Amino acid sequence: MRISELSERSGIALATIKYYLREGLLPPGERTGPNQASYGGEHLRRLRLVRALIEVGGLPVATVGEVLAAVDSPDLPLFSLLGVVQGSIAGPPPPAPDAEWDRAAAVVHAEMTRRGWDSKPSPEAIDTLTSVLVRMAQLGYPDWGTTVLPTYFDSARVIAERDVADAFAAGGREDIVDAVVVLTVLGDTALAAIRRIAHAQVSLELLGDQPA
Amino acid sequence: MRISELSERSGIALATIKYYLREGLLPPGERTGPNQASYGGEHLRRLRLVRALIEVGGLPVATVGEVLAAVDSPDLPLFSLLGVVQGSIAGPPPPAPDAEWDRAAAVVHAEMTRRGWDSKPSPEAIDTLTSVLVRMAQLGYPDWGTTVLPTYFDSARVIAERDVADAFAAGGREDIVDAVVVLTVLGDTALAAIRRIAHAQVSLELLGDQPA
Repeated sequence: MRISELSERSGIALATIKYYLREGLLPPGERTGPNQASYGGEHLRRLRLVRALIEVGGLPVATVGEVLAAVDSPDLPLFSLLGVVQGSIAGPPPPAPDAEWDRAAAVVHAEMTRRGWDSKPSPEAIDTLTSVLVRMAQLGYPDWGTTVLPTYFDSARVIAERDVADAFAAGGREDIVDAVVVLTVLGDTALAAIRRIAHAQVSLELLGDQPA
Repeated sequence: MRISELSERSGIALATIKYYLREGLLPPGERTGPNQASYGGEHLRRLRLVRALIEVGGLPVATVGEVLAAVDSPDLPLFSLLGVVQGSIAGPPPPAPDAEWDRAAAVVHAEMTRRGWDSKPSPEAIDTLTSVLVRMAQLGYPDWGTTVLPTYFDSARVIAERDVADAFAAGGREDIVDAVVVLTVLGDTALAAIRRIAHAQVSLELLGDQPA
């Protein structure tokens, strides 16, 4: 197909596609004339992934290039590839460790060990979780990590099994990475919203239907 | 206690406390001299709540004033009070409804109805969830709302029961509101992080321990 059809079918503006071509995020089409090139299904798929990484994952263009390089390395195992993807969409690094940090990190470590979970593949998420426990303690909830945290782990496990089954059903490496980005980022927002809905429902059941 | 001790025990800077006093977020202390006032436990509790609303909930000072007014209205039922709190820490409003929106809203509505959940108390969260479903469909995941969403609802319910039990155990109205803000906002971050940890663990189990 021509670049105009690629734009139409992907829903991405022509100028944006040309920008992705210049930045090397999209491989060049097959030359069919002095000023024309032909694009195929692999361009459509790549465009979709680039858009997911930029618009949904919030990645800068340079980082998108790194993720695509990992997608295109046939020797990189899928598990390592997903580590690159998850690391790239993680938040900012945590503050420097201190005594409070060490206490919180020990709680997280104990919870993971008890479940036989490997902590190596997700250092960023473990740091984020540790920083939440530090903040909870500072704000007056020092026991949250032992009272509530296990329930979060149980439920997250159920959700993750569903997420991963869904993402892996997507097909090839590129489709799986696209699914991981979209389902991770939008899934966060969905889960936060559903948790609020459930908070309201549970409170309603406990407190009864009272006048506003 | 004097204002200097209030600052020491709350960990909040003297200048910040004086600012809260000027803005009416903290009631004045009991006058004990021409230039002195005495503060008590209720000031400590109020300071803690104000800090949770501003630092954790990200609320502007004007909105903090509205939430405190609701806390201080003895005739407002706790359930309605929590609605004011959750509404104040919700995100921006969703885009205008269209056909895609209506389809997504119907999926959310069906899921809630099937569970016998009341949709009135959480309009903001339902709008956020609907906007996620719209975005999922636009990005190529039109079935997410029927395949994955029910699992999210199941797990969110388990988490919410634990959250609400924890928040309601906090004591009086003010303590409960503090707990709701802290546990809602920090809980989002914690849950997102744990979901990533669980993603890595489930992928590891499915794909095996492969070289990096």
